[in-house]
Amino acid sequence: MLRKTLKSLVHPSVLSRQMSIVARSLKYTQHGEPQDVLQIVEDRLTEPRDQQVLVKILAAPINPADINTIQGKYPVKPTFPAVGGNEFVGQVVCVGDKVKDLQPGSHVVPLATGMGTWTTHAVYNEDQLMAISNKVGLAEAATITVNPCTAYRMLKDFVKLSPGDTVIQNGANSAVGQAVHQLCRAWGINSVGIVRNRPEIAELKMMLECLGANAVLTEEEMRTCDLFKSGKLKRPKLAFNCVGGKSATEVSRHLDDRGVMVTYGGMSREPVTVATGPLIFKDIAFRGFWMTRWSKENYNTTERSKMFRELCQLMEEGKFVAPTHEMVPLEKFKEAAIAALNFKGFTGKKFILDMSC
Amino acid sequence: MLRKTLKSLVHPSVLSRQMSIVARSLKYTQHGEPQDVLQIVEDRLTEPRDQQVLVKILAAPINPADINTIQGKYPVKPTFPAVGGNEFVGQVVCVGDKVKDLQPGSHVVPLATGMGTWTTHAVYNEDQLMAISNKVGLAEAATITVNPCTAYRMLKDFVKLSPGDTVIQNGANSAVGQAVHQLCRAWGINSVGIVRNRPEIAELKMMLECLGANAVLTEEEMRTCDLFKSGKLKRPKLAFNCVGGKSATEVSRHLDDRGVMVTYGGMSREPVTVATGPLIFKDIAFRGFWMTRWSKENYNTTERSKMFRELCQLMEEGKFVAPTHEMVPLEKFKEAAIAALNFKGFTGKKFILDMSC
Repeated sequence: MLRKTLKSLVHPSVLSRQMSIVARSLKYTQHGEPQDVLQIVEDRLTEPRDQQVLVKILAAPINPADINTIQGKYPVKPTFPAVGGNEFVGQVVCVGDKVKDLQPGSHVVPLATGMGTWTTHAVYNEDQLMAISNKVGLAEAATITVNPCTAYRMLKDFVKLSPGDTVIQNGANSAVGQAVHQLCRAWGINSVGIVRNRPEIAELKMMLECLGANAVLTEEEMRTCDLFKSGKLKRPKLAFNCVGGKSATEVSRHLDDRGVMVTYGGMSREPVTVATGPLIFKDIAFRGFWMTRWSKENYNTTERSKMFRELCQLMEEGKFVAPTHEMVPLEKFKEAAIAALNFKGFTGKKFILDMSC
Repeated sequence: MLRKTLKSLVHPSVLSRQMSIVARSLKYTQHGEPQDVLQIVEDRLTEPRDQQVLVKILAAPINPADINTIQGKYPVKPTFPAVGGNEFVGQVVCVGDKVKDLQPGSHVVPLATGMGTWTTHAVYNEDQLMAISNKVGLAEAATITVNPCTAYRMLKDFVKLSPGDTVIQNGANSAVGQAVHQLCRAWGINSVGIVRNRPEIAELKMMLECLGANAVLTEEEMRTCDLFKSGKLKRPKLAFNCVGGKSATEVSRHLDDRGVMVTYGGMSREPVTVATGPLIFKDIAFRGFWMTRWSKENYNTTERSKMFRELCQLMEEGKFVAPTHEMVPLEKFKEAAIAALNFKGFTGKKFILDMSC
């Protein structure tokens, strides 16, 4: 029956690569460190029926939230046994008879979370998937739903920005940070990035400036800089914080009257300290953002479609690239998970599991 | 010429008390402690012309911001020599010939700030004044523009509240805190007050409950209470903080998803510490409020008129009373300023300079 469906729907070139529909997945049955609890498990997949879609996963990133979920440190709790991962780009192999808009060969990305994406193949429902142009690079498509969307929403949903306005952020070399600089460049908004000092600071600054940052400063440089006092750049209306502690305080200090600081991470594990004076007299607001919540609350909205359309167009035009990353084969997941967890280097490189060959 | 105007416009009973229009004012010519730099100075007032209005001040409170302004610790800086004070209720004595809506005998309160209200008489412009029913008590009218308006705006402008929703606040015995409990009662909103423990805690709780608080807890009791877990009250959508430090953290911990904490003071002189988790995963927002800014930005708005109308109506109906206070004569300003600054007692009593006799 599966063979028949494959024959009737799948392009021969795809079919020939998909004859044996056994998924190899990174599964875990308890919380713990990824390298301890993840195992490659093989499952024979059932034929897609009704609205179901059989997808061959091409690439799936390892995000910090994926690791925290496995560790049991994330607010989203999986049902065991669980397959790791939340993002992917895949290719449709074959579809159930009630699938309306997806065809074999189409590239797809997830609309939902918790779909267990660290696998070679999976059967999903059509309403969990969104088609994406195969002109979008695999690394860009595989990482579109979390970091670029976070940057997009944080730039759109807290303050009304106009071209020439300024945004400031710490952790500028994070995946979201890189996305922020690129979107700001595309939209004519000035962006200032703060990073920790490090031996390769010159290269890091150059890289972030290539992505669109108007200025990249170390935390020490920020304390003494006159970027805003001198009028070179307008005082920022919006700040993004993924560090916390002193770094967050320092960034918020530069905000203009009525400015908003949006926290989306806490790498230092220190809270954000908010002085009373700026809250009251400058009307500074401290907010937070969680992409998972937004995506759930806007699952099928036109606003969400519009966002994906704009991001894909920038990606197709080469104006938005994936964060610094390394593609690794599924078999190297332990090394990748350890490296993703502990990586202290240059840009906080993202590891992407590569199942495309 | 002044005599002539007085004769033509002033009711004889007022005139007889106002024959000598010499203002006695609490003035200062440099920043410092109020008891050191304030002096009673006499000035002969010029006749009110055009849009000017001669006002006999009846009562004027000593607010913390007034003292901070004299100390030079407030963002609003006076021009020297300056008269202290920002609030009052007064009675119109006589008016210039272009004054449209105010008549001698009317009670008035200030629409502007920095009008120097610790004085027996003053000449203001009509557009700096708002008529207020003389059925509103002098203590209520003298203190209407700062604390009740702060409570009103904080309840209206940050979260949409419906009857049955809950608000939580620390510093519940502050003047704003007392106003919050009364407005919540009037509007069917549940309010929970947090106060520091003290010998007279039973009396303080009873007083705040009389004003409308559904529950009053010490900081220690709050840490272990089950008010919200038990479902007795809905989790608060809105929190008010005038303390900072641990108290602010504790209060914010009880907020519902999407809750907002508004800071309007910082009595502990400690900053607000904001954990990253609630910011991101509960979408808690930390905002600030400054009445002075709002009033400037809404000087002549219908929203402002509506607010005063509603507050006055509640005051006339006896549903809103002035905060715990003591009326003191102008001559006792030094004792009052020292007491206002250092008062550590029961309810943070407000001192109101009484010039009504």
